[in-house]
Amino acid sequence: MEESLIIAREALAAANEAKYIANNTWMLVATVLVFMMHLGFATLESGFVQKKNVVNILFKNVMIVSIGLLSYYLVGFNLMYPGVEGGVFAFGGFGLSLPEGSAGLIDYADGRYAYYTDFIFQGMFAATCCTIVSGAVAERIKLIPFLVFSLFFVTFAYPITGYWKWGQGWLDALGFYDFAGSTLVHSVGGWGALAGAILLGPRIGKYTNKGIKAIPGHSMPMATIGVFLLWFGWFGFNGGSVLSADPGLVSLVFVTTSLAAAAGCIGSIIVSKVMFNSFDLSMALNGILGGLVGITASADGVSIWGALVIGLIAGGIIPVSVTIFDKLKIDDPVGATSVHLVCGIWGTLAVALFGNYGQDIGTLKAQLIGIVAIGAFTFSFAFILFYLIKISLGLRVGRHEEVKGLDREEHQAMAYT
Amino acid sequence: MEESLIIAREALAAANEAKYIANNTWMLVATVLVFMMHLGFATLESGFVQKKNVVNILFKNVMIVSIGLLSYYLVGFNLMYPGVEGGVFAFGGFGLSLPEGSAGLIDYADGRYAYYTDFIFQGMFAATCCTIVSGAVAERIKLIPFLVFSLFFVTFAYPITGYWKWGQGWLDALGFYDFAGSTLVHSVGGWGALAGAILLGPRIGKYTNKGIKAIPGHSMPMATIGVFLLWFGWFGFNGGSVLSADPGLVSLVFVTTSLAAAAGCIGSIIVSKVMFNSFDLSMALNGILGGLVGITASADGVSIWGALVIGLIAGGIIPVSVTIFDKLKIDDPVGATSVHLVCGIWGTLAVALFGNYGQDIGTLKAQLIGIVAIGAFTFSFAFILFYLIKISLGLRVGRHEEVKGLDREEHQAMAYT
Amino acid sequence: MEESLIIAREALAAANEAKYIANNTWMLVATVLVFMMHLGFATLESGFVQKKNVVNILFKNVMIVSIGLLSYYLVGFNLMYPGVEGGVFAFGGFGLSLPEGSAGLIDYADGRYAYYTDFIFQGMFAATCCTIVSGAVAERIKLIPFLVFSLFFVTFAYPITGYWKWGQGWLDALGFYDFAGSTLVHSVGGWGALAGAILLGPRIGKYTNKGIKAIPGHSMPMATIGVFLLWFGWFGFNGGSVLSADPGLVSLVFVTTSLAAAAGCIGSIIVSKVMFNSFDLSMALNGILGGLVGITASADGVSIWGALVIGLIAGGIIPVSVTIFDKLKIDDPVGATSVHLVCGIWGTLAVALFGNYGQDIGTLKAQLIGIVAIGAFTFSFAFILFYLIKISLGLRVGRHEEVKGLDREEHQAMAYT
Repeated sequence: MEESLIIAREALAAANEAKYIANNTWMLVATVLVFMMHLGFATLESGFVQKKNVVNILFKNVMIVSIGLLSYYLVGFNLMYPGVEGGVFAFGGFGLSLPEGSAGLIDYADGRYAYYTDFIFQGMFAATCCTIVSGAVAERIKLIPFLVFSLFFVTFAYPITGYWKWGQGWLDALGFYDFAGSTLVHSVGGWGALAGAILLGPRIGKYTNKGIKAIPGHSMPMATIGVFLLWFGWFGFNGGSVLSADPGLVSLVFVTTSLAAAAGCIGSIIVSKVMFNSFDLSMALNGILGGLVGITASADGVSIWGALVIGLIAGGIIPVSVTIFDKLKIDDPVGATSVHLVCGIWGTLAVALFGNYGQDIGTLKAQLIGIVAIGAFTFSFAFILFYLIKISLGLRVGRHEEVKGLDREEHQAMAYT
Repeated sequence: MEESLIIAREALAAANEAKYIANNTWMLVATVLVFMMHLGFATLESGFVQKKNVVNILFKNVMIVSIGLLSYYLVGFNLMYPGVEGGVFAFGGFGLSLPEGSAGLIDYADGRYAYYTDFIFQGMFAATCCTIVSGAVAERIKLIPFLVFSLFFVTFAYPITGYWKWGQGWLDALGFYDFAGSTLVHSVGGWGALAGAILLGPRIGKYTNKGIKAIPGHSMPMATIGVFLLWFGWFGFNGGSVLSADPGLVSLVFVTTSLAAAAGCIGSIIVSKVMFNSFDLSMALNGILGGLVGITASADGVSIWGALVIGLIAGGIIPVSVTIFDKLKIDDPVGATSVHLVCGIWGTLAVALFGNYGQDIGTLKAQLIGIVAIGAFTFSFAFILFYLIKISLGLRVGRHEEVKGLDREEHQAMAYT
Repeated sequence: MEESLIIAREALAAANEAKYIANNTWMLVATVLVFMMHLGFATLESGFVQKKNVVNILFKNVMIVSIGLLSYYLVGFNLMYPGVEGGVFAFGGFGLSLPEGSAGLIDYADGRYAYYTDFIFQGMFAATCCTIVSGAVAERIKLIPFLVFSLFFVTFAYPITGYWKWGQGWLDALGFYDFAGSTLVHSVGGWGALAGAILLGPRIGKYTNKGIKAIPGHSMPMATIGVFLLWFGWFGFNGGSVLSADPGLVSLVFVTTSLAAAAGCIGSIIVSKVMFNSFDLSMALNGILGGLVGITASADGVSIWGALVIGLIAGGIIPVSVTIFDKLKIDDPVGATSVHLVCGIWGTLAVALFGNYGQDIGTLKAQLIGIVAIGAFTFSFAFILFYLIKISLGLRVGRHEEVKGLDREEHQAMAYT
């Protein structure tokens, strides 16, 4: 063979390998960023709870990451991406199923990332849905029952509905679109949060005859750290969901994600100023999160103006939603249902309204079907699971323990000396 | 066409695309790192203020990021990089101006990064200059007036002087050099900080007949977290300013940046130990920041020894500068003017003294012109703006509010329960 | 020359350059991640000490990074990677020795990263070994003596034993394997910690006639932040130790590292629940760290199941080891000896038990020789150094100062107002 052909082929192979390395590196960096969201949730939630329950919420968050990664390795990954045909669910077997020697082969995922990259990126996502629940049920749920719930929720509920869309299941075939998980991750967590908050009932003293009593979080700096870390992690959450380092797409996702977050902050501040006549930091923080959740379904296919509107509305939803849940006496200490469930639904609908996916009225229908189907499945799953735990292990700590704080009773430790 | 030529061309295109992906990925990672500086400032400043003003400083920092990103999108980016000829300023139009479909085209920026990457990286820079101001005016400025100042400062002042150099304006033509913004970002913020601190006057009780009263920050761990996060972010701030992932240059920038920070710590500790006979953590922290600000103008073109000297001197400047500002009764709760303004000027001069840019006496002249021109413009802009706000909206909170704390009065919330 | 050959050669060069850029970018990102471990240690250790000693531990951690980077630049790097033949040690000269113009040349390290990348990645590692020591000797060691110890320890002890393996010294020739430093970094720090804790003796009131008194850390949120940041940094610590962005290897390392951390959490919680009948957050946190230290020696060459077992056992070791050290009246406020020394030894042995390196009984022997040789050298070095400091400068603060707290006496500052 002539020299030029040999070199040309060698060059082409090297160039494809370079693309593979660059793409895979971004996916790994995105994985690290998403990992940081677990610290974001841990600090956000601990900032928003009372001092007496801080060790408990930290303990739960540490355990959720650990349980989530292990169960996703054992079951979840192959339930969400079974690689085999299935109806409502399918299962590809326990553990990681590629022969280990082939893990780095370039022919996986069209040479965009390695097999283990796929697993660990998705694995970091999985546990977030339980963390969302943990905020809403904080300050009154028993430790072991909550961990049992988390184990089942992350092992079965999250991967099954994830499979419906991202695993090329029936919702995907229907045209349902959810780029990085406004519904598949955030609403799923939010439905679990709602089921838990309803079954547990409100914290003692929250809703009294004299009205609703605000129970302020013990550390606003901690909550603020949490929101910045979540925004930081969202660059990986949304940016990594491109599933390659495609410069045009990932950079677009960075812009839409950031501007929606910023607009969410402004939207929430305006509405909360009007509603409560106060510059409320916790509303600004949840407004940012609302904007981030809202843009997550369409961050790869929306105009900049679309992103701004989506974020602004998501932020504006927050104070309204928080107020409504309080009227309904559904007590959620960190506002997780408003942020993740309500803004998650809004973001999923926004795909049909603002997306550049060539959508039509059929898209709106598909989005609605997806929201309802996943909502019905997840809420039922969570409600039944919580209920079974309630009648077996018990769900709520005793009155004395709740008043004294979960740290003292469940952990024999204080957050601060 | 013969096979080898076809494959060779395909390989060349793939190789260039791979370089594009790799370069762009680094710029996006740098963007994420710079984003983290906003959390760094938020924690640093909240650590250095009194407990009663923590919610207020956090609220301001959250709002600044949001306002900064939105206004930079609407106006700032095209004012700083107008892409059209102009004198002292030029404007390329509102919003992002490339057709959306072309956002990922490889022919933008010589294939080093995508259009949206350019915007979001620069956008993360923009808001930092206002954050610098917020520390210096903390604990006594009214909320809305400060946000109004920030909006105008980040929308007009920062992009206009930025254009003079980075937008290929007249200072660039003159030979002025400022790699990543010792002057263009840090001094600009510092001049705004100085104007604000002068017009506001010192906090009640700071300068008394009996001398200067130290008002210690409420949380040294929070301040320390802030400095580490800022150092972390500076890898993106300086490393990303290479505007590609060039291995030799970015790695050099990492080394000069890190060693200048380390030397700044040592320089500040030595001088402050001599001056105050104490191992002062806040001086160590501000010494690191001083070293980082100092190296920012020349991080890409200085020898390692040069970086060490620049950092050491910048660190040594800190305790001296803080003392001088206190003698002048210019009250700056976090030392922002010393860190960002004074060390920013030092770093800009150091380009002429230690840089490897083939500079001569003309370089020193250009640096001085740049420092003076940007200083005169920015200080005047900020002073007039603050003054107009002072005589219209009012700038300073009432005595009662200042004593009780801004959190209670402006936010009806406490940082800690 | 014909056109196709010219283009083919150009394409090959461009492809190799693209690989170089992508690989180098990952190494720089890994550097940034490892840098974050210093904040992780700072927050972990400050969370685990009493409120009165927080400024002191923060000051030490800030100084260690600075001293570590500077001394590694001046001496350490060329002592660890001398590039020349040597026996027990060799030295390549002061400072960085490549001509500056050649720093970005692609022919360094087979085109995987630039010279300065090599230095700064390794430099971020170096200081961690002293940080490990600082936790164990906290709340009673004098400031300057500790910094003198750190300077010598990081300048000589760490690079010399590092050279034995990573600098292609005699342990490397023997077949000793330690991927990212279970022994070379963590045990080395752990031996220093042990020597210091023994020579200092326990804190006043820790071991009394009535038994062991728990001295709880002052802030569990701070400690939790520390552990998450360390895990975050470990993606760079282990992932960067691949020394390229090889997709298969780095992604494998991500998976083994994360699952070992998760298993470490579970292992520690199970054993501590059995031993202490309590869900102990500090054990969960140290269990994660134990799992991370344990997997560090073999993260690139172990099966997933192997990683799980290594992490589970490492986590289970923590409560047992902490208890044993307490029985021996070796007082270690943060558990650094259990985490870094004991789990570091375990991880180094695990290479022989679970690794996929084609090992045999000779591997176990080599691992044992490495553990013993490095342990004997480092412990002796640290013990003698601490002893010389003890009889010259003095090592321990006075009783009054220890009771009142080091912050007040050494820094004239409080962590919180």
